[in-house]
Amino acid sequence: MARYRLLIEYDGTPFVGWQRQERGVSVQGAIEDAAARFCGAAVTLFAAGRTDAGVHASGQVGHLDLPRPVPADRVRDAINFHLKPLPVSILAAEEVDEDFHARFSATGRAYLYRILPRRAPPALDRHRVWWVPVPLDPDRMAEAAPRLLGHHDFTSFRAACCQAKSPLKTLDRLDVVRVGAEIQVIAEARSFLHHQVRNMVGSLKLVGEGKWSPDDLARALEARDRTKAGPTAPAAGLTLTGVTYG
Amino acid sequence: MARYRLLIEYDGTPFVGWQRQERGVSVQGAIEDAAARFCGAAVTLFAAGRTDAGVHASGQVGHLDLPRPVPADRVRDAINFHLKPLPVSILAAEEVDEDFHARFSATGRAYLYRILPRRAPPALDRHRVWWVPVPLDPDRMAEAAPRLLGHHDFTSFRAACCQAKSPLKTLDRLDVVRVGAEIQVIAEARSFLHHQVRNMVGSLKLVGEGKWSPDDLARALEARDRTKAGPTAPAAGLTLTGVTYG
Repeated sequence: MARYRLLIEYDGTPFVGWQRQERGVSVQGAIEDAAARFCGAAVTLFAAGRTDAGVHASGQVGHLDLPRPVPADRVRDAINFHLKPLPVSILAAEEVDEDFHARFSATGRAYLYRILPRRAPPALDRHRVWWVPVPLDPDRMAEAAPRLLGHHDFTSFRAACCQAKSPLKTLDRLDVVRVGAEIQVIAEARSFLHHQVRNMVGSLKLVGEGKWSPDDLARALEARDRTKAGPTAPAAGLTLTGVTYG
Repeated sequence: MARYRLLIEYDGTPFVGWQRQERGVSVQGAIEDAAARFCGAAVTLFAAGRTDAGVHASGQVGHLDLPRPVPADRVRDAINFHLKPLPVSILAAEEVDEDFHARFSATGRAYLYRILPRRAPPALDRHRVWWVPVPLDPDRMAEAAPRLLGHHDFTSFRAACCQAKSPLKTLDRLDVVRVGAEIQVIAEARSFLHHQVRNMVGSLKLVGEGKWSPDDLARALEARDRTKAGPTAPAAGLTLTGVTYG
């Protein structure tokens, strides 16, 4: 048996999400099926972050075991060959020790959330951004964002279906930057609650619109009550950009 | 009668190109049909650059005449409403003098060509980049590119079907820059021959691969012979980013 760590890119638009499901094509299922066709045996793939339907990744990390060792570059190329024409690609494969686990060994996750605040709908990036047809003030959002940094009970930004044992998380980075016509939110933490990034972005948007003050964002966090925070931002704007280990 | 200048964004992937054709959906046809539904009369749209099938635009400029003056923002919103769900969007509309012509008044065009040189196929930007699965040397490409700058007979980089009267053009900018994993080529001129940018990029790629020297690129230009230059780079990598006037 040999274990491989995979660096994975995908456009989440056509997938039901990371996780294999009864109905629809999942990223996990697509890669597992491609790997099985290549190695002739059933394969199970574990990921650092089980992204929702419509969420993208430029730096997802997974691991799988193959019955026999194969050169890592051949693993990458063979899986990519069998993945065609789905929009998912193995950027790199590397043989790793058997104690490596894509999810449990991960020490950090980084997400990018892209907002396009303009009157006209997006044509070029319509499945990659949250289109907000009203003006947003990025400076105000950037002023509010640090209120969420640090170790907190993030119940206000947690999906009802979240399976984490504890709502306590440490948010290491939450930057709001203007990039061209877009406002981008960069979030980093050891791990996130389900929907946490999208829920934080949904509240930051209220700050950007002027409906909330930066203090309102702090109060939403303190309330520890999902109904006190903003709505969940759409999946399409979110990309898992990287996972760190060790 | 009132004339409007439109700033237009589109994803060229599903279109047969800018120009209205007997078969398939063109960008021109889509916008003309949307404008006709809004104003109740047939409308003709002129563009600064008639992009080919699969070529994108983030800053195409067009103009059209409406039978009666309408507030410009309403023109933008109404056309966008009728364009749904096609990936084309009017970013801005502005009323202009009747002597404004999107094509003939234009004094500059800017294009971006995106190359992704890596072993793994693109998943996120697969319709927006040229995937080149071999390494390219961007420094070598950047060294060669200036050989094409200035006023030249660009016959070597001209499509057989090009309708321009003269092959003489002045290339004002041809920059090669590394952006993340991509190599991007930025080209600016008053106007270009048909396929000129894609043909220049196709030759620059040969330089990046090491198959051509920078001097070979200069010799290809001097040959004034299409068969002496590299192949045409794919449409998907090309985006018309802007048009200047006056």
